[in-house]
Amino acid sequence: MEPKKKLINSVDSCVDEALCGLVRASGGLSLLRGHRVVLRADLDNLKGKVALLSGGGSGHEPAHGGYLGAGMLSAAVAGGVFASPPPASILAAILCLHHAGASGVLLIVKNYTGDRLNFGLAAEQARNHGVLVDMVIVAEDCAFDQPSKAGRRGLCGTIFIHKLAGALAEEGCPLDQIVSKVTEVLKGIGTLGVSLSPCSVPGCLPSFDLPPGDMELGLGEGGWKDGGEREKVEVIMSLFIFTFNVCSHCAVCESFLFCTGDSVVVCVNNLGALSCLEMAVVTGAAIICLENRGVVVARVMSGSFMTSLEMAGVSLTLMRADQETLRLFDAKTSAPAWPNLSSVCVSGRSYITDPQAVSPRPHADTHSEGPLSPVMRKALERVCSTLLEKQEELNSLDRAAGDGDCGNTHAQAAKAIREWLQDHVVPDCPGQLLSVLAGLVQEKMGGSSGALYSLFLTAAAARVTEGQNIAAAWARALCVSSSGAESTRNLTAMAGRASYIAAERVTLPDPGAMAVAAILRAVLESLEGQK
Amino acid sequence: MEPKKKLINSVDSCVDEALCGLVRASGGLSLLRGHRVVLRADLDNLKGKVALLSGGGSGHEPAHGGYLGAGMLSAAVAGGVFASPPPASILAAILCLHHAGASGVLLIVKNYTGDRLNFGLAAEQARNHGVLVDMVIVAEDCAFDQPSKAGRRGLCGTIFIHKLAGALAEEGCPLDQIVSKVTEVLKGIGTLGVSLSPCSVPGCLPSFDLPPGDMELGLGEGGWKDGGEREKVEVIMSLFIFTFNVCSHCAVCESFLFCTGDSVVVCVNNLGALSCLEMAVVTGAAIICLENRGVVVARVMSGSFMTSLEMAGVSLTLMRADQETLRLFDAKTSAPAWPNLSSVCVSGRSYITDPQAVSPRPHADTHSEGPLSPVMRKALERVCSTLLEKQEELNSLDRAAGDGDCGNTHAQAAKAIREWLQDHVVPDCPGQLLSVLAGLVQEKMGGSSGALYSLFLTAAAARVTEGQNIAAAWARALCVSSSGAESTRNLTAMAGRASYIAAERVTLPDPGAMAVAAILRAVLESLEGQK
Repeated sequence: MEPKKKLINSVDSCVDEALCGLVRASGGLSLLRGHRVVLRADLDNLKGKVALLSGGGSGHEPAHGGYLGAGMLSAAVAGGVFASPPPASILAAILCLHHAGASGVLLIVKNYTGDRLNFGLAAEQARNHGVLVDMVIVAEDCAFDQPSKAGRRGLCGTIFIHKLAGALAEEGCPLDQIVSKVTEVLKGIGTLGVSLSPCSVPGCLPSFDLPPGDMELGLGEGGWKDGGEREKVEVIMSLFIFTFNVCSHCAVCESFLFCTGDSVVVCVNNLGALSCLEMAVVTGAAIICLENRGVVVARVMSGSFMTSLEMAGVSLTLMRADQETLRLFDAKTSAPAWPNLSSVCVSGRSYITDPQAVSPRPHADTHSEGPLSPVMRKALERVCSTLLEKQEELNSLDRAAGDGDCGNTHAQAAKAIREWLQDHVVPDCPGQLLSVLAGLVQEKMGGSSGALYSLFLTAAAARVTEGQNIAAAWARALCVSSSGAESTRNLTAMAGRASYIAAERVTLPDPGAMAVAAILRAVLESLEGQK
Repeated sequence: MEPKKKLINSVDSCVDEALCGLVRASGGLSLLRGHRVVLRADLDNLKGKVALLSGGGSGHEPAHGGYLGAGMLSAAVAGGVFASPPPASILAAILCLHHAGASGVLLIVKNYTGDRLNFGLAAEQARNHGVLVDMVIVAEDCAFDQPSKAGRRGLCGTIFIHKLAGALAEEGCPLDQIVSKVTEVLKGIGTLGVSLSPCSVPGCLPSFDLPPGDMELGLGEGGWKDGGEREKVEVIMSLFIFTFNVCSHCAVCESFLFCTGDSVVVCVNNLGALSCLEMAVVTGAAIICLENRGVVVARVMSGSFMTSLEMAGVSLTLMRADQETLRLFDAKTSAPAWPNLSSVCVSGRSYITDPQAVSPRPHADTHSEGPLSPVMRKALERVCSTLLEKQEELNSLDRAAGDGDCGNTHAQAAKAIREWLQDHVVPDCPGQLLSVLAGLVQEKMGGSSGALYSLFLTAAAARVTEGQNIAAAWARALCVSSSGAESTRNLTAMAGRASYIAAERVTLPDPGAMAVAAILRAVLESLEGQK
């Protein structure tokens, strides 16, 4: 195993610097001097309300400091990377909230031995100081399918508890009622994760090794081969949801986590290094997978909410949600890490817009033949044969400075126009013809040339007026373009591959300009032949 | 180079699936049938207002679909991964916004040849359909220090333009005024990035190779050795800010990007795989570095806003901001990827809370000697000498099932208590003494034992009442604990290292229980000696 590249090479100061960075960047937060404790800056607003405290090891950012604000946590205590915070800091945070006038303090603790001990100890000490304190333990990991020794771990489902308890506290709900509500909600929360790669603590080697092709299901609960190079997303999502159901029907909670017709809130959590593109794919798969099982997806949050440093992986958290749970979930919060969510139900919503529903119907192809039609058809045929004849000459010019395919792209355009001419009437209106040609080269010519020609033809289409002396206009254009093409010998390329090539190598005329000159000459010769 | 592990192994369908995932998860979005176009679901709200359209290659999520909503974009067009979107889809999006009743359409385009061509072409075509269209080009990359051929690239600064133009459009500002405002703002925006590792398109090898110890400054503009294993964050931030100033004082824009006293908005952008812990450290360093140069940091956003798949790296965007710019930046939006920001100025804010400011002053150590003091001092001295005598015996018991350090941790506690006894009065109140002991073991004993003893002592302190027959209570406790310690032979460990060890190996009594029995026996013998 090799160490991973990081911006930080030592674990010593990074936790304090990260807390400082979070607090400095967020207008609503402050640090408690002498402790790794983040506080709401507006402690005055806690007067007479229940204050909420959470925390745990660092390395799981934005948990927990990012979830502080009106409607969520009042304070968060951070330990070292993946280490439980010391009881003295937890106690200092509790006392600070108490002295700010909170009517009670609720500790929201993830089910790890160290966290339970240290938060439990601080709670006892706070009670000796006369503080009304209670504690809820979050233990919603579904990686075990039977009761284990230490119990289930607390994972990303913790932030659902932060949110719901926070909304209740903000409303002025007393401590015992908050505890009884979230205790009830906790029975309907489950999380399962999968990792593709380990994370590594700054200055240390990766935490474990995952051979190519292996993934680890359950984040620390054993590896799993993905069975080849096929897409894994749907397989994983099906497995997740299957596990939620099996696991929930075990001796631990004695009930299904969800049944057909249940309404759920979904959190798709990036463990750190999964790309946002993959996250969006996973999110879509999770929604579809749940709906296929008859579950109503009420809300979805997708992003980095409870990470493990830069682990490449994802966890899925489901929470069974009634109307009251949704109301609390939707309540406003100022917590900086809470996402900007809509309160529209995800399932059952129409999410495809039909262009026809918005736009008037496009008018049919009603071009009619007119006096100019045969003239323009002849000119186009001549342009096409000229471009096909010059294919190799243009390629050769292009090899000096570009990709050597200038002749090929023009030949493609010529073939597309020839094909169109076979079964279409050439419109009598030059503007209409130019629009048709713009569409053809945009679709069939390819490359930057296709886009450029299409752009010119479109702009020209808007400006061509019927009745002008077209032959004279083409003749003027020809003179300008021929001398222009020759003058490109001394131009400096401003974009595209030619711009990266040494100027000494670019001594021949620009092949694109030569092509334009050839096109215009073909048009002129064709028009002169008509006279 | 090895391929990276991904949840998705092919680039074919991931863009469509990711767009579907985004739109399904977000209540305010919809997809335009037949195109990779995301639309606001509430198109009706565009009536009479300017609509905003942006887009570009995929792989930069949450850009651009995540920035749709009231107060930001109206629609976004996605190309393939790192590829410009086709003009036909851009045109379809423009026409859709036009037919929904928008008074005009502003295209916000990043400065890449393909994007400029394709958005420009669609704009021409839309004008031929009678749509009022304008286009702003974002080109705020500071990696070049002199005018380049293709111009600066458009990077994360683009979302500042989405935000400001979106707020103006929401207010009903006409197209020409929006264009002139954002054109002015663009002169004061700069971005610089650094990458530690390349990203890789699903199914492809990584996009480039970065040897160990190298970083690439400027995201595609050349590597840079970091000069060893020291912390890099501050070096990078200083370099960023130096470059902004140098670069901005060049022929391109002929002015400083910012000067002392200027107010700026800062965006610290995760390019994909940087841990949130590192992101917070970088954010703090950026704020400090700017303030050290006399710049006022008005707002900070930190997170994944314009990624490059799972590239490990960070970019910093600065925007010079007057009061009007800040007002537009702070305006509400429903865009799902816009963060929950405070509108408090970052610089100049007090962000440290002093415990003394909140809490009443802790009472001084006013314990006084009383009749029980010498009794308890003797008992404690006996406990300490007993634990030091039994150090090796307890270690030996612990080696069978634990870490073999049970004697050591108890000896540490004994030494700490002895040290405390040397220069403190033993309080006459047993509750006070137990509280002192709880603090000592919590701080000095270490391990789970320290936390557990502290927890028991704290709980006991709250329940001990003066005047009870203490010797009798200790005697009862001793009998229970001695038989209790023996009975631990057959206990199953529920937590800690012993819970992972095969039960066959654990046949001796629990060393912690033996220690508790020894402590209680020492207390009893000491009390009996006093009679």
